[in-house]
Amino acid sequence: MKKLKIAALGGGTGLSTLLRGLKEYDIDLTAIVNVADDGGSSGRIRNELGVLPPGDIRNCLTALSEEESLMSKLFQYRFPLKGSLSGHSFGNLFLTAMSAISGGFDNAIANCAQVLAIRGRVLPVTLSNVVIEAELENGAHIVGESRISKSKSKIDKIILFPSYPDAAPDVLKTIKESDILIFGPGSLYTSVIVNFLVDGVIEAIKASNAYKIYVCNIMTQPGETDGFKLSDHADAIEKHSYRGIMDCIAANSAEIPAKLLQKYKKHGAIPVIADKAPQYKIVKRKLFSDDLYVRHDSAKLAKTIMEIAKKEARYD
Amino acid sequence: MKKLKIAALGGGTGLSTLLRGLKEYDIDLTAIVNVADDGGSSGRIRNELGVLPPGDIRNCLTALSEEESLMSKLFQYRFPLKGSLSGHSFGNLFLTAMSAISGGFDNAIANCAQVLAIRGRVLPVTLSNVVIEAELENGAHIVGESRISKSKSKIDKIILFPSYPDAAPDVLKTIKESDILIFGPGSLYTSVIVNFLVDGVIEAIKASNAYKIYVCNIMTQPGETDGFKLSDHADAIEKHSYRGIMDCIAANSAEIPAKLLQKYKKHGAIPVIADKAPQYKIVKRKLFSDDLYVRHDSAKLAKTIMEIAKKEARYD
Repeated sequence: MKKLKIAALGGGTGLSTLLRGLKEYDIDLTAIVNVADDGGSSGRIRNELGVLPPGDIRNCLTALSEEESLMSKLFQYRFPLKGSLSGHSFGNLFLTAMSAISGGFDNAIANCAQVLAIRGRVLPVTLSNVVIEAELENGAHIVGESRISKSKSKIDKIILFPSYPDAAPDVLKTIKESDILIFGPGSLYTSVIVNFLVDGVIEAIKASNAYKIYVCNIMTQPGETDGFKLSDHADAIEKHSYRGIMDCIAANSAEIPAKLLQKYKKHGAIPVIADKAPQYKIVKRKLFSDDLYVRHDSAKLAKTIMEIAKKEARYD
Repeated sequence: MKKLKIAALGGGTGLSTLLRGLKEYDIDLTAIVNVADDGGSSGRIRNELGVLPPGDIRNCLTALSEEESLMSKLFQYRFPLKGSLSGHSFGNLFLTAMSAISGGFDNAIANCAQVLAIRGRVLPVTLSNVVIEAELENGAHIVGESRISKSKSKIDKIILFPSYPDAAPDVLKTIKESDILIFGPGSLYTSVIVNFLVDGVIEAIKASNAYKIYVCNIMTQPGETDGFKLSDHADAIEKHSYRGIMDCIAANSAEIPAKLLQKYKKHGAIPVIADKAPQYKIVKRKLFSDDLYVRHDSAKLAKTIMEIAKKEARYD
């Protein structure tokens, strides 16, 4: 029996959240992960061990693990001994050792998934060491994922350096052969759109017969999507790809508790208004859990995706 | 559907060979591993990292892996960087990190099997730091696995220090609840019989309804079983346990090529003659491959075990 092929393009915690829910279904699941990560530890790994920043990759492997809490503890473990390796997490040593025996980072990630008890595959979107640059509406240019999230002016466009890097092996093929493609949830520019800037990705999405779902964020993100409604998210995606890149948008429909709203407002985040985007079908569900944060709930999100797969993509 | 529960007691390369073949069947497989290993690296690990010698454990995990050659390469990898960790294999660092987060070596091994893509379980037979002592027929006493294999006089009896150590958690339960128990193949005293010297193991075997198979070695082993026939192997096992501990003995029936015989004879090893052991059913098959060494063939051995399981233990 052929399994439903789902590929999720994204990065950061949003992608991990999605994978955590989807791994419970009997599907053929691939995560395509943005690796333009300029966080603190990545430069060090890049310089000392000569591999791509493994943070998001590691998080995806963990999220797909059959024993997630154990894998997470193991990957975060640091040896108490002195020496050059002792400052690194076990997860980074794992990816480094695997890179050394695999002849390349892309093979290393594929091999990690094979030796670990993982329900799915993880692919870096590109093997190039890329940096994101944002052009703001005020004309300024900002370089680096972490700085972009702190920008005060609205983002007009993002580009990659080097521009249009090659896609990693299997990425384009996976996109073309998927039954369902999912974009997001996660930082609109630095986790979702950034994947469209890799050479061939947009063409592969266009060529794919997959049913395409964008999972819209529940709250706006200061520095990236201040004041954005659902339609603004869709517009930004289309501006960096093409009109009609999605078939459907999954949005949260449930009201955010007042207490949480207050907390988020202090940090400049408000709920994304699920307005109309006439060219797309909008599926509205309660997508968060009653928690201390307004975040997508893995199980609710995955259930919604599978429901869309059944109804809209006519998959049983 | 309930899976056939098979537990294999042993150690060294013999146990790995058996597991490598059995993992291809849809069974519930547990390896119970002798950890009295005084080889070169084990003392270092014991002193530096405070865990049991992981050599045989690591080999069992590798043998049970879905991607054995990859896992093997990964576990053997050593970091080229300087520092206190750099001399250790990645496999040992893996078990050490897992021990640190698991609160104990037994949990660590169980947890390794959970995060790795492994077809079965691996249990150390005991968590005590044990050493094997042999009493020879000439009255001498020899301590340590590696020295015992070099003894010139026949072994009369082996004992453990400390004597009758506690079995590790789950070992006795697993033995009692198995459908098939397998002893060997491997070094008669230091891999097979040594497991019977752990407190409660013999009683658990007696209490178990399992069909019990001893896999006899194909060649004699200098220092352990010089000149032994099949019946001598069975006698030595009974001497350290009880009469009737097996239901059946799987023995090689095929003639060893003359070239190989010569080679082995130089090192003092000759084929084990499959004579009669009237109290036991003897199943004779060709159990080795045409190779540079006379070793059990994983696939042939596992096929024979599953055939015995079907016919003798009436399992389908």
